[in-house]
Amino acid sequence: MTRRGSSSVDDGLAEPRDGDTADTALVVVAGTTATGEIEGISAAGGDPAAAVHTPVADTEILTRGRVRSAATLPVGPNGCPTPAVLSRAVVETLGLETLVVDAGLAASPATQTRRVADRSGADIREAVAVPDAAGTYDRARAVGRSLSADRVVIGETVPGGTTTAMAVLRALGRPTAVSSSLPDNPTALKNTVVADALAASGIAPGDLAGRPLAAVRAVGDPVLPAVAGVVRGATATDTTVVLGGGTQMAAVAALLRGLGVETPLRAATTAYVAADETADLARLGTALSLAWTVTDPALAELGDHPVAAGYAAGAGKEGVGAGGALAVADEAGALAAVRSRVERVYERLSESSSS
Amino acid sequence: MTRRGSSSVDDGLAEPRDGDTADTALVVVAGTTATGEIEGISAAGGDPAAAVHTPVADTEILTRGRVRSAATLPVGPNGCPTPAVLSRAVVETLGLETLVVDAGLAASPATQTRRVADRSGADIREAVAVPDAAGTYDRARAVGRSLSADRVVIGETVPGGTTTAMAVLRALGRPTAVSSSLPDNPTALKNTVVADALAASGIAPGDLAGRPLAAVRAVGDPVLPAVAGVVRGATATDTTVVLGGGTQMAAVAALLRGLGVETPLRAATTAYVAADETADLARLGTALSLAWTVTDPALAELGDHPVAAGYAAGAGKEGVGAGGALAVADEAGALAAVRSRVERVYERLSESSSS
Repeated sequence: MTRRGSSSVDDGLAEPRDGDTADTALVVVAGTTATGEIEGISAAGGDPAAAVHTPVADTEILTRGRVRSAATLPVGPNGCPTPAVLSRAVVETLGLETLVVDAGLAASPATQTRRVADRSGADIREAVAVPDAAGTYDRARAVGRSLSADRVVIGETVPGGTTTAMAVLRALGRPTAVSSSLPDNPTALKNTVVADALAASGIAPGDLAGRPLAAVRAVGDPVLPAVAGVVRGATATDTTVVLGGGTQMAAVAALLRGLGVETPLRAATTAYVAADETADLARLGTALSLAWTVTDPALAELGDHPVAAGYAAGAGKEGVGAGGALAVADEAGALAAVRSRVERVYERLSESSSS
Repeated sequence: MTRRGSSSVDDGLAEPRDGDTADTALVVVAGTTATGEIEGISAAGGDPAAAVHTPVADTEILTRGRVRSAATLPVGPNGCPTPAVLSRAVVETLGLETLVVDAGLAASPATQTRRVADRSGADIREAVAVPDAAGTYDRARAVGRSLSADRVVIGETVPGGTTTAMAVLRALGRPTAVSSSLPDNPTALKNTVVADALAASGIAPGDLAGRPLAAVRAVGDPVLPAVAGVVRGATATDTTVVLGGGTQMAAVAALLRGLGVETPLRAATTAYVAADETADLARLGTALSLAWTVTDPALAELGDHPVAAGYAAGAGKEGVGAGGALAVADEAGALAAVRSRVERVYERLSESSSS
């Protein structure tokens, strides 16, 4: 029902425990790019079905705490579950509101969404990757203007997204250090794909420095202009925005700088991304006047648990706004409660996936 | 935000006035079929942009009372506005909850939706019109099961929908009397299109009598299995369902009968459809054990008003659940209040369209 939202049906949300965070909302922009189906490019790569279903499952985990569509629990290398588990644990612990923005999901999620893109992104090695980048940005801006929370944490889920982010950063002439959902970042492969992408669009690095939406159209994915649009719309109505994520959020910051946004920008990510030398957050932060908050969920305290083991081994790292959500939890002094909740969310997901 | 739903942002909903209707929800299934782009087939036909944008605008009018996307107010012959105006007037008068189900919209609406189809329907004169009819039905069934209202009125908006309904009824061997959004029902054109559609799929009338989802796959649109799925899921959890609409809801009833549903079914439509001899509601009702409620909103009492004039001339007639919504308003003794609200909704829409 519109007035209550889909999560009223079956969400298991806890009542908010902390008044300070009650007016923070978590917005997650979900989408698909055919770039994510390239063998070896992401934790979901090499398996076209996973590249389609991972962002769908992520939206279901975020809003309902369960996987409801045909997809099962997305699991990366080492059995590391999707960071949606972390975000959902924060949502349940603090009672955060959520909104899912559908920026070109290739399959239907079992949750309410606000659509801003009419199709998925093409492989960036085609001439045009996101034909309607400008329309997506405009629709997302309207979503951002309509948000009623005082503060919004915005995250993303799009397999292949660090590669498209790298391509956009390169087209804009920005530093292209990016992280990975894999323990060993396939940097060489990404560089090859990005070089092919720029060549297919007939552009050299930095050629589109002043034209961020043209860069997205040529070599991006539909999630990037959607996140940028929501941020632009939200800040225009004095909503505080936290970019929840790693290097993809740096690409969003680059888009916003190119669009003339000069206000300070803040991003919040996990300690796993910060520990990833290939991400080089400091360099991206300096280049883009982007301040980073880094939160360590200290999952090791869960002991011999699949979530702890997976993240400790460098898989997953970030996504679905996890870093931003954890920053909010840390601010509320609720990280220990979030860790306990991670166990419950994971247990519930493991049950529903095997049934 | 998920927990409050999109309409919390800017919906202008009145508080519910009548406790009896507070737990009735209006679910509208919106979609696109390329069949709706055939010249002369519907009020939106002959204009591909209108066939795409009319259902999008309808969902925005229903949930927000305004057209927010690029589309302007859908207006048919004689300047008759979309029946979404009537449904929205009921929603505002009684404070009904709404849910929009996206069954293959070709463009993104500026409102939250629950998606159940991953693509629009093809022209039924192609071999396969709805490749994923079964998946759409299954996803919609899950939506129906999750509804929390005691009673659900379900409506549709899909330009070309009476033609696809006719094709499905014919494939199932049911009476094919259907209404039209045009003052003069283009029955000859519809018959030609339907005959071509069955031929393209290699089927004769009645061939798919026991296989309703195969009939939708061959010659239907994605909205039909979505409505049937929501109804099936809702009735399975003891939610009372009213099919809000005319001949397309008869096609839904035919699908449900073919799927083994034997419980009584109730449909509610407007006096405009009932007055349309080509619709032949009585014959459809008898064939499908479908009881009709017919409500006359008496728009003539608005005097010299574009809405009154358009509907009096036989345009519009039904859609977006209008007949079902009006039945709920009538039951609550609120038809006069709804008429006043129609003027306000129309005025607001006319302003926003011209700005």
